[in-house]
Amino acid sequence: MNKITNLSKNDLANAQETAEQSSRRDFFRKTAAYSVSALAAASILSPVKVNAGDDPAIIEEQPWATSLGDPVTKNQYGVPSAYEHNNIRRTSELLSSGNWQASISMCPIHESEGIITPNGLFFNRVHGGVAHIDPNKHRLMIHGLVEKPIVLTMEQLKRYPSVTRIHFIECPANGGPEWRGPQFNSLQFSKGMMSSAQWTGVYIKTILKDLGLKPEALWMLAEGGDSSHMGRTVPIDKVLDDAMIVWGQNGEALRPEQGYPIRLLLPGWEGNLCVKWLCRLEFASEPFYAKEETAKYTVLKPDGKAIQHFYPLEVNSVITNPCPEKPWTDLKKGDLVEISGLAWSGQGTIEGVDISFDGGKNWVEASLEGLVLPKSWTRFSYMYKYEGKSLLLSSRARDDAGFIQPSVKVEREVMGVESVYHRNAIATWEVTEKGEVNNVQVLS
Amino acid sequence: MNKITNLSKNDLANAQETAEQSSRRDFFRKTAAYSVSALAAASILSPVKVNAGDDPAIIEEQPWATSLGDPVTKNQYGVPSAYEHNNIRRTSELLSSGNWQASISMCPIHESEGIITPNGLFFNRVHGGVAHIDPNKHRLMIHGLVEKPIVLTMEQLKRYPSVTRIHFIECPANGGPEWRGPQFNSLQFSKGMMSSAQWTGVYIKTILKDLGLKPEALWMLAEGGDSSHMGRTVPIDKVLDDAMIVWGQNGEALRPEQGYPIRLLLPGWEGNLCVKWLCRLEFASEPFYAKEETAKYTVLKPDGKAIQHFYPLEVNSVITNPCPEKPWTDLKKGDLVEISGLAWSGQGTIEGVDISFDGGKNWVEASLEGLVLPKSWTRFSYMYKYEGKSLLLSSRARDDAGFIQPSVKVEREVMGVESVYHRNAIATWEVTEKGEVNNVQVLS
Repeated sequence: MNKITNLSKNDLANAQETAEQSSRRDFFRKTAAYSVSALAAASILSPVKVNAGDDPAIIEEQPWATSLGDPVTKNQYGVPSAYEHNNIRRTSELLSSGNWQASISMCPIHESEGIITPNGLFFNRVHGGVAHIDPNKHRLMIHGLVEKPIVLTMEQLKRYPSVTRIHFIECPANGGPEWRGPQFNSLQFSKGMMSSAQWTGVYIKTILKDLGLKPEALWMLAEGGDSSHMGRTVPIDKVLDDAMIVWGQNGEALRPEQGYPIRLLLPGWEGNLCVKWLCRLEFASEPFYAKEETAKYTVLKPDGKAIQHFYPLEVNSVITNPCPEKPWTDLKKGDLVEISGLAWSGQGTIEGVDISFDGGKNWVEASLEGLVLPKSWTRFSYMYKYEGKSLLLSSRARDDAGFIQPSVKVEREVMGVESVYHRNAIATWEVTEKGEVNNVQVLS
Repeated sequence: MNKITNLSKNDLANAQETAEQSSRRDFFRKTAAYSVSALAAASILSPVKVNAGDDPAIIEEQPWATSLGDPVTKNQYGVPSAYEHNNIRRTSELLSSGNWQASISMCPIHESEGIITPNGLFFNRVHGGVAHIDPNKHRLMIHGLVEKPIVLTMEQLKRYPSVTRIHFIECPANGGPEWRGPQFNSLQFSKGMMSSAQWTGVYIKTILKDLGLKPEALWMLAEGGDSSHMGRTVPIDKVLDDAMIVWGQNGEALRPEQGYPIRLLLPGWEGNLCVKWLCRLEFASEPFYAKEETAKYTVLKPDGKAIQHFYPLEVNSVITNPCPEKPWTDLKKGDLVEISGLAWSGQGTIEGVDISFDGGKNWVEASLEGLVLPKSWTRFSYMYKYEGKSLLLSSRARDDAGFIQPSVKVEREVMGVESVYHRNAIATWEVTEKGEVNNVQVLS
């Protein structure tokens, strides 16, 4: 494959920062010159449309410009534009059971921006349907190997000093449909079992200061108050590190789908451990082996043995633009276009992301855009000059715990193809000469 | 007033970090001991409820625990819990005109968490009602003193390399009702003309690289495509610094109330400058003196002259817990409680926040919690031992541009009482002996 030379957004940003130190006006004149030499040769938009006299959207008056709009009193709680009706969660018959009450709806991550998912689009996994709990009748019991067991009302719980953190939550089966080969020609269906939010709640270690944990406590059971009574056991080190009980999501109360009034949050660990509708924490010296950690959420290896107690989600990434839902069919040769995507790791902070145009033979480094936070979605970006050639487009993320995404080949050697869980191999989009985008796997 | 000595959350956090460097388990045993000596004397909850055998919420089975909940297919776009029906935007007759089509709805910031406002609760100021624009028929014209004028479709605009930033937007009249004395015994009505979001869009300087700005361009007109045709002029230095055209809000498309499909964002500057339903940018050598920057949004000073071109919002803060909507009437003497609030500055990053319990005579330093970002809401926190005494509770923020909030007295000397705009004086809550909270002003 030919060597790919492109302007990266980092290059642009660095040029800007250096120049801004002297003078903004001066900077601008410099970059205006820069524009002629570098960007004009590969303009973002080609051709630039100067005269729009033939565009009805310009020459005709639009109704919203000539008549008054809605009063501010119309929606005390606002809703999206009707034109955004396609930006919704979606479900698959492949993943339905129990009249969709033990199922999952996928987040439209192809439409996502930045590192926050709006609450209305957060992916939704349930084992007994979405419970609608009256917070006045909800209690959190904390007992077992603590000096002072307690039953908390929601008001009492919220009296503890709160913390707010941005973290993703991901189902360990995200990407699972790919385990033996691509099943969905879609980003939403292949990687949409995850979302990200700003969470507000209390560290469990803060509450335990009041209650006094007994030295022999090595495990914590978390139980949900919904009809599935989801139960998962958490090792005490994670509890005392960053485990939280959260009541706030993106600045408001948790949605019922996310466990209103409270859920457990174990940053970076399997989403099913982040028990929704949390009603009970019990401390013990042994794991509990609850239903959902024996029948489900174990990983069958090639040798026939299964991994239990499999918690943190591995370093991962996916290109969100382009993707099957966002093809490049409107691009013209010579156009500059931004390749962008999401990287994340349950084991630390994203350190870098590489992009390949030839299915993993050669790599170039993308730039990280916006906030780079631990156990959080991180955006990456790469400015690319479109040439109308077919590509095998891949991303490969690295985290500060020292991990890097494996190839599909290496992942299969280690993990086999018997389990849908913890698949974090490098994903590849095929971009055709026409700019269509397909979900493929590179097995070499 | 007696000297106030309390545990700060910073103290707790620092203790944790130091301990975690050696061993988490070891840390926990240390803090368990610490709990007995320090926190047990002032427990978060007093008394700790050990036996809950008399609590119907515990001993009776709840319907959500015994029957299946909603299928995941029910809401493709989710909604809040019905129990959160009070967490809504509110309006005031005092601020209504034109059948609420030139009005404002206030954000329930007393219910806010962290530094993100959910899109459904973002404050909403309109001059001609909420326009509902078809994005396929919307265009952005950029012309005047540029080498290559252009008309962009929304698809073309989104081809530019995007950036994502968290910033607040605030109406310069926020807190304005206080200009001659408290008018609303409410946090939502006294300070709710602001909200905060993660914005995604493109820096205007990036587009100007393609178009070529002429050296004589010193001002930019921004015009809205709604029926009010809101127009504001922006100095070129701000345009070339961090002015953005945004299409994304908290991970999805802007809401119609926020200017769907695009609005101008001038981080830290008056909200009315962040023109919604943006349809035109024109570059010129002189300001435009549009309707909304002559009749409105000027500040009448005590000497009878008016300040025009008044842009950045000054350093400011408010305590959100307690507040009139969140009183301390349930606290018992000896309870530890978290005082928390929001600080922000349109001129930089928050450096610190001080708390006073005696109306500004003595100050103690709060800790900053979570992300501390430029031109962004910043959370502050202070752990306080409630003693059932009456208090005059104030917060005072400082930013890295070197500014600190003035007292009401100083603000009135400089700004007078003829304008509702740019009021950032220290706000005070009176806390009564019963824990009720009232909006008051300290004039000394």
